[in-house]
Amino acid sequence: MDKLYVIKIGGNVIDNEALLKELLLQFSSLQGKKILVHGGGKLATRMAEKMEIPQQLVDGRRITDAETLKIVTMVYAGYINKNIVAQLQSLESNAIGLTGADAGVILAHKRIHPTIDFGFVGDIDRVNSLFLQGILEQEISIVVAPITHDGKGQLLNTNADTIAQEIAKSLCAHYETKLIYIFEKAGVLLDVEDEGSLISRLDRHYYKELKEPEEGPVRIFAGMIPKLDNAFAAIDSGVKEVIIGKASQLQELIAGTAGTTIIHE
Amino acid sequence: MDKLYVIKIGGNVIDNEALLKELLLQFSSLQGKKILVHGGGKLATRMAEKMEIPQQLVDGRRITDAETLKIVTMVYAGYINKNIVAQLQSLESNAIGLTGADAGVILAHKRIHPTIDFGFVGDIDRVNSLFLQGILEQEISIVVAPITHDGKGQLLNTNADTIAQEIAKSLCAHYETKLIYIFEKAGVLLDVEDEGSLISRLDRHYYKELKEPEEGPVRIFAGMIPKLDNAFAAIDSGVKEVIIGKASQLQELIAGTAGTTIIHE
Repeated sequence: MDKLYVIKIGGNVIDNEALLKELLLQFSSLQGKKILVHGGGKLATRMAEKMEIPQQLVDGRRITDAETLKIVTMVYAGYINKNIVAQLQSLESNAIGLTGADAGVILAHKRIHPTIDFGFVGDIDRVNSLFLQGILEQEISIVVAPITHDGKGQLLNTNADTIAQEIAKSLCAHYETKLIYIFEKAGVLLDVEDEGSLISRLDRHYYKELKEPEEGPVRIFAGMIPKLDNAFAAIDSGVKEVIIGKASQLQELIAGTAGTTIIHE
Repeated sequence: MDKLYVIKIGGNVIDNEALLKELLLQFSSLQGKKILVHGGGKLATRMAEKMEIPQQLVDGRRITDAETLKIVTMVYAGYINKNIVAQLQSLESNAIGLTGADAGVILAHKRIHPTIDFGFVGDIDRVNSLFLQGILEQEISIVVAPITHDGKGQLLNTNADTIAQEIAKSLCAHYETKLIYIFEKAGVLLDVEDEGSLISRLDRHYYKELKEPEEGPVRIFAGMIPKLDNAFAAIDSGVKEVIIGKASQLQELIAGTAGTTIIHE
């Protein structure tokens, strides 16, 4: 079984030109099938300000109205996606940039919520893994922008973490799949203030001990719990490992010598 | 040999929502392999104004500086391209949006000119027809944004007419290829003011008569000459027909009952 790496990078990498360059260099030299999922960065926010499009927040949640969707489509699917692809090409790493609309790769629906209208935000229904496989088998890496579509002509802003997870799940029957979340921190920390408290390997048993200790308080940073629950859900669906760590350490993350590796027990 | 249609649409279609919708509906119902190449529209100009990026003109030619390239990448490769793809998906017509950087589909170089620096404008070196064929063989239409790359990490703004022509030329050994230019006028007119003066079929012999008549003035609108010279160059390279006509008449253009069809003598 061939190896597949699904790597998600967020704004902290996108907004840092040198760090992005370093990550792409490491990405280009990885052996195996590769998918890079990127989020947005500050550019979309700056553009919205320049265009005088107010950011709507409802109950503290950002709303994607029609004008904001236009901006994120331009910035994510246009500027960020194509610049990453061009940089990879220059590193002799053939790559193609896709949104979920392209070749119907990710079908989603507008988020349904009892009280909040998130606007043009998509929740994923289905990944067209067959098309992705066809590209990967041509030794072309895939760069995915966090924009999907509903099959009825509507583009939708979609969480990049979830896209990475759903893509990894859809392909793990065909490839030995590692899902890698690039993070600001060195990985999962026992103490969020102390990089020395890194957990290097986390299985379900240990996670349960941290999250629901027999005595004493929860031993893990609360903000990590949804991320880790998702990571274990991916593992349950057949993803071999989920790895969390820093952009500058991609190779070490994959080797298991840096970051946190989440494994089946 | 399968049929291939390479159809170029410009700003006059992009900027007219109803006309674009009608064209995409006709495009989706065409039988055969299909590639749609789109130009930009007024949105890029409006964005540049809002972002306060002055349009540079040198000797009456528009210059693509770094900020303008950013805008056209966002608008062409992001907004326009992905909205066309999503609309085609809603018409049950599977489609993928590409720039020249994606899968290294179109390699170009920064334009070299003795006196004018056009900025980030690309002239085409090579089309990766093998990758395009692989997509077309999956019955997926291709939507091309007029952005290419130089293989060294630089995106380049590239003329959409030329992209359409180079793509058609690169694929005409594999498909019976028709190259269609969507135009504001009904086709090539003897009198640019009179739609009744449409030339429905134009071969090289007749073209020579119009361009270099034995007596009297040139009988064809001067502005059409470069377009027609290019059309005949495409025909010489093996493209079966070049057709010029209106967006609302796509099916008639292909049937030869509207527009101007340019053929080998």
